[in-house]
Amino acid sequence: MLRGLTQEGIGAVESPERMIELASEAGFQAVDFSAKELIDRLGTAGAREKLAKHGVIIGSIGLPVEWRASDDEFRDGLSALIEEAAAARALGCTCCCTYILPSTDMKPAHFMALATRRLKLCAQILGVYGLRLGLEFVGPYHLRTFWKYPFIWTMEETLDWIDAIGEPNVGLLLDAYHWYTNGGTIADIERLQACQIVHVHINDARNVPVEKVLDNDRLYPGEGVIDLAGFVQALQHIGYDGVVSQEILTLHAPVETPEQLIKRSKAGFDRVFEYKNKQI
Amino acid sequence: MLRGLTQEGIGAVESPERMIELASEAGFQAVDFSAKELIDRLGTAGAREKLAKHGVIIGSIGLPVEWRASDDEFRDGLSALIEEAAAARALGCTCCCTYILPSTDMKPAHFMALATRRLKLCAQILGVYGLRLGLEFVGPYHLRTFWKYPFIWTMEETLDWIDAIGEPNVGLLLDAYHWYTNGGTIADIERLQACQIVHVHINDARNVPVEKVLDNDRLYPGEGVIDLAGFVQALQHIGYDGVVSQEILTLHAPVETPEQLIKRSKAGFDRVFEYKNKQI
Amino acid sequence: MLRGLTQEGIGAVESPERMIELASEAGFQAVDFSAKELIDRLGTAGAREKLAKHGVIIGSIGLPVEWRASDDEFRDGLSALIEEAAAARALGCTCCCTYILPSTDMKPAHFMALATRRLKLCAQILGVYGLRLGLEFVGPYHLRTFWKYPFIWTMEETLDWIDAIGEPNVGLLLDAYHWYTNGGTIADIERLQACQIVHVHINDARNVPVEKVLDNDRLYPGEGVIDLAGFVQALQHIGYDGVVSQEILTLHAPVETPEQLIKRSKAGFDRVFEYKNKQI
Amino acid sequence: MLRGLTQEGIGAVESPERMIELASEAGFQAVDFSAKELIDRLGTAGAREKLAKHGVIIGSIGLPVEWRASDDEFRDGLSALIEEAAAARALGCTCCCTYILPSTDMKPAHFMALATRRLKLCAQILGVYGLRLGLEFVGPYHLRTFWKYPFIWTMEETLDWIDAIGEPNVGLLLDAYHWYTNGGTIADIERLQACQIVHVHINDARNVPVEKVLDNDRLYPGEGVIDLAGFVQALQHIGYDGVVSQEILTLHAPVETPEQLIKRSKAGFDRVFEYKNKQI
Repeated sequence: MLRGLTQEGIGAVESPERMIELASEAGFQAVDFSAKELIDRLGTAGAREKLAKHGVIIGSIGLPVEWRASDDEFRDGLSALIEEAAAARALGCTCCCTYILPSTDMKPAHFMALATRRLKLCAQILGVYGLRLGLEFVGPYHLRTFWKYPFIWTMEETLDWIDAIGEPNVGLLLDAYHWYTNGGTIADIERLQACQIVHVHINDARNVPVEKVLDNDRLYPGEGVIDLAGFVQALQHIGYDGVVSQEILTLHAPVETPEQLIKRSKAGFDRVFEYKNKQI
Repeated sequence: MLRGLTQEGIGAVESPERMIELASEAGFQAVDFSAKELIDRLGTAGAREKLAKHGVIIGSIGLPVEWRASDDEFRDGLSALIEEAAAARALGCTCCCTYILPSTDMKPAHFMALATRRLKLCAQILGVYGLRLGLEFVGPYHLRTFWKYPFIWTMEETLDWIDAIGEPNVGLLLDAYHWYTNGGTIADIERLQACQIVHVHINDARNVPVEKVLDNDRLYPGEGVIDLAGFVQALQHIGYDGVVSQEILTLHAPVETPEQLIKRSKAGFDRVFEYKNKQI
Repeated sequence: MLRGLTQEGIGAVESPERMIELASEAGFQAVDFSAKELIDRLGTAGAREKLAKHGVIIGSIGLPVEWRASDDEFRDGLSALIEEAAAARALGCTCCCTYILPSTDMKPAHFMALATRRLKLCAQILGVYGLRLGLEFVGPYHLRTFWKYPFIWTMEETLDWIDAIGEPNVGLLLDAYHWYTNGGTIADIERLQACQIVHVHINDARNVPVEKVLDNDRLYPGEGVIDLAGFVQALQHIGYDGVVSQEILTLHAPVETPEQLIKRSKAGFDRVFEYKNKQI
Repeated sequence: MLRGLTQEGIGAVESPERMIELASEAGFQAVDFSAKELIDRLGTAGAREKLAKHGVIIGSIGLPVEWRASDDEFRDGLSALIEEAAAARALGCTCCCTYILPSTDMKPAHFMALATRRLKLCAQILGVYGLRLGLEFVGPYHLRTFWKYPFIWTMEETLDWIDAIGEPNVGLLLDAYHWYTNGGTIADIERLQACQIVHVHINDARNVPVEKVLDNDRLYPGEGVIDLAGFVQALQHIGYDGVVSQEILTLHAPVETPEQLIKRSKAGFDRVFEYKNKQI
């Protein structure tokens, strides 16, 4: 597994180049951000060089298409999707992710039908660029009733949706926070095949009843109550060898510097991955 | 367009053979029932002969698979689907239909994902036998809230679902009752392509506010308030040339004989299709 | 049916705007060219206005993607496909067409696998813009052996390929020349459903043995031996109400002016569609 | 990886039950045969018990559908497919395999289109029973020209076909003989993801020029020139943990007893998997 950073939880890093440097210095091997933005700044050759020099890959790009609103908005994003996918391919990135809100103001079955068709097309486009699409289920209770109707929020439901989308390159973005807020178990992870997982997020949760855990009030890995060591060991056990990225959404912008935050993140990863050293 | 009868609204006809005879005598050109049952009773050659002799075709078979419950129940119906599809093919029938309940006790988005995959498989199986799959949206208000969550009940939603299923041989079963209870207009029909329609049902509604119209309290064509003449003229206008079958669900079993009921049905069809005679 | 013109057979018309004017003056109702090019020249509002003022629609755009060569070339065309599809949608055009060469230097089964996946993606993209994709089989004998291996060239094979592509919005571009060189019959057309046909080409063939008919040596409608009146009557009979465009590929550039060539085309269409006036 | 036996190469074992016993005695963990046949003989409970008692699973069933001939023959096999898939599911088997002949008398592109649609349906049916479909490319030179036209025979072509079929549960049956006769390398295997491989066959080849290697003249593992140790180590390296079954097609029926042949097979496997013991 490769250790990665998203832009959530590391403060206001001034540029993707700087993020590559900071990640590399702290021993991270992947960063999650827009491949197109890096190429726009450095050119394709420059972007490749920058990543290679620092021994860092792009773990995942985000899906730059609005698939949750109108058909017009969806269509408007397709050119950007192609540009981002081409950029990702040029930089060797093979993952693209999006998240699923657990409730909706639309009639949920109708929205599911629309979203199935839209994500199927996104997956096919990504596929011709060699990318996979990861769908992230979102567990916190408060979001399940935030909008009028329930949508989906469990791993099982998401796997069933992936079946309905029916494209070979669609899988899970498995986020430890959403696994935890769903009451997920180690056995739930061990029932998966490694290739069903496109990408992984880790982050930690406060010691409050699980129904009170807020989506945007996360802790750094190892600072909370989630069994992250068990989580990553289960992933290793099933043969997952992709990127595990930290994603820390917080109520307030962190006051520490990016350097301090990334150091803190590194410490968290070290605690979580400690078992690896033990095994040697 | 061919005039057809379903088994709903003609009383207790003793056998499919008898239904063929009665339909033919009253000038109907199609009957909707199980092709397999007819073959089980008469053999393939006998069934073909019976239909040919009376100038009647099978308008549509029903989908003999439980796609609304568990995966196990779904799997258990696949052999029957293949047998029914093979029987339909042997008798020249090209349509298979099922209806969509407008509310559900399941989480509707999850159910939509499961149902999409299941109906996609049914459509593919039907396709290799030369059959199309018609999906019937169900409009009456009382059923929209009968189960816990809304599912889908409009033509537009159903067309979007057909897009999500993504198979070329899936279309609408357009039922005048459900069109009426959805506040459907002639223009709504005229926006369709003929090939989006797999099958058509007609029947009439009581003169009560549309929100009070009950799904199982229908009238014979021409005995109620639905503009059925406009409905079938719109179908003719867009080039629909398939079967239009009567389907009369009633609160109580009718007391008249099949002969009387079919005569009454014929009178209804004559009123609805009257414009055709006028035009000549 | 609407009478249409492609850019083949009308000489060097100086601009799409001029083609719209000439087509309109000669009583044509459709022109086949790039929607994007027209919008690039006139803006979206200007393009709409120009078409509306002259009572002409865009019958079909061409597929601006190289699906017959490498994956890289295919990917390079996807942005153009999205732009062209968006432009077509903005101008109300609903058809996009491409042709199938009947032989290939690639291993034909492998090429078929690659092309199936590529055209499936093109069809899905076109679908979200409300366009259909028409596949044109190509009949002339000399092209069947022009490259090393046979590919496909019959209507039946093309319909089977459309089944394999499996998208609801894919159908035939039925070209009279290819129908003729395949030994096609009126009955072959009458076996089709109107909605299986996305677009139609007409043009005529020299009075030579059918095996000698050259793809790029066509005559104007009514000047050769193809039963074009029977061809269009069969289309009318099955309810086809789309565009019928002339496409005249010739060995040498025509010496007549565009005005003369379009007049000649009009005379050809009048002969072919003569039966219509007779019926009234 | 689990060591498995197919029915090819072990002589005339009198029954599947006896094959389970012999396989188990020789330390094999999987047998490849019809799940339905075993259930027909022992009942579902009896079949499960027999397998469990001997510590053996069914590695793969064969695809019981004729997908290489007419549509009628294809349809005729669908009921058997459902029965076999249901039987496999009942016994915990998750793989179903079929092979691809490298040449054909049909027009290859047309056959590819037909076969794509047929195998797509097979894959979807297998999918609802929790099975994957493995496609085996066939490498020997003499078969590439045995029929009139080339079809496909390389791993790359087969992967492209799997993309065209487009179902998530389709992958490779990787047979060492076909890998060898294609000039396959260790690097070719290492480029695969484990989840692209549904099933594996091993067997060995005579020391003759690779173009002379006959499909039906195979040797037992370790008795020929294929680098089977490298082959299985590459599989282990990419994380393949499924079944590796022996499949020995020979010109003449072997004269040894099943007991002797299975002992010989065991010795072959021991040589091939020797590295495993070394590593411990």
